[in-house]
Amino acid sequence: MKIITKEFNISTEGNCDIKNISENVQEIITKSKLSEGSCNIISIGSTASVTTMEFEPGLLIDIPKIMDKLIPVYSNYHHNDTWGDNNGHSHIRSAIFGTSVNIPFINGSLILGALQQIVLIDFDVKKRNRRVAVQLIGQ
Amino acid sequence: MKIITKEFNISTEGNCDIKNISENVQEIITKSKLSEGSCNIISIGSTASVTTMEFEPGLLIDIPKIMDKLIPVYSNYHHNDTWGDNNGHSHIRSAIFGTSVNIPFINGSLILGALQQIVLIDFDVKKRNRRVAVQLIGQ
Amino acid sequence: MKIITKEFNISTEGNCDIKNISENVQEIITKSKLSEGSCNIISIGSTASVTTMEFEPGLLIDIPKIMDKLIPVYSNYHHNDTWGDNNGHSHIRSAIFGTSVNIPFINGSLILGALQQIVLIDFDVKKRNRRVAVQLIGQ
Repeated sequence: MKIITKEFNISTEGNCDIKNISENVQEIITKSKLSEGSCNIISIGSTASVTTMEFEPGLLIDIPKIMDKLIPVYSNYHHNDTWGDNNGHSHIRSAIFGTSVNIPFINGSLILGALQQIVLIDFDVKKRNRRVAVQLIGQ
Repeated sequence: MKIITKEFNISTEGNCDIKNISENVQEIITKSKLSEGSCNIISIGSTASVTTMEFEPGLLIDIPKIMDKLIPVYSNYHHNDTWGDNNGHSHIRSAIFGTSVNIPFINGSLILGALQQIVLIDFDVKKRNRRVAVQLIGQ
Repeated sequence: MKIITKEFNISTEGNCDIKNISENVQEIITKSKLSEGSCNIISIGSTASVTTMEFEPGLLIDIPKIMDKLIPVYSNYHHNDTWGDNNGHSHIRSAIFGTSVNIPFINGSLILGALQQIVLIDFDVKKRNRRVAVQLIGQ
């Protein structure tokens, strides 16, 4: 049994930009030569999330739209008083979606549905270069 | 330390049908003869979720009702343009609830509250036969 | 490779009280003398959640406020018919936020952003003494 902890960066446009990071994660598994184990993926920071979804153009419009309805961008969040960075909604969305997921792999491949991808959603209000940590425990 | 990766199926009615899968998961732990470790449960696919909750009849009505308010079924989701399958809301709900949880076990039993169960919520719009993967890492 | 499973208690005021539990978790890692591995944190019970966020005073007001809008306290939840404990909203919020997170650690430190903390949010309607389980798998 081995533990391997890696990190990669991904550039986003912010404002609910959704990035498919499945290949970045799968590449780490493939290079590790591990066959079976657990893969933990975490977005480092508190204004982005990691989750799984079908990565198709429709949902890339739907998810930002519904988030704007539920946790609006233009609200008087007290967070904005603390830092003046106007991203209170980004923090709340990230806490609800969560920042990490754990996905098993077998025969060197993640156990996911045929159309299910791992995504990073950047809820912040500007372009960011995001750090994602990936940890494998396996054999 | 051992890794054991299993899968089981569960039939649902779709439309926010909530299934208690605690016994399915516990059975895998019991059969594994492992005493202490980590149990990762993931719903394979992007229109269902796995979470924990008290599995009682009231909440089985409350959760679908509030989801219908927050992420309505009858909306013009762009996802529906892509596939014509009318389940845009199912995908968004699944991404928010998340598809996997990780729960420790000790003395062969999951560490959960007395009334806390592991559930699969099927947000899709029709009956489905769902695949759930369970991975144990323990000793 | 070792597995270490611990538990700690934390007192809350309920009603969306948010507690920073990063130090409680880090202390368990430090005492374990493990350098690299996975840390699974779970709130035992179904009316609280564990997530990560920036722990600053503004968000401690914003999150309860937005949850009161999305999943209101004073609603006729069917859960309240079952138990008469008037905390239907607490259960729904907990199921959406989720009860567990998994965070890698390296060189004995959790991989988190500089301002990203692990928090327990108690959605229940009264003061509680909460049990949190922490499991480390590492070397």
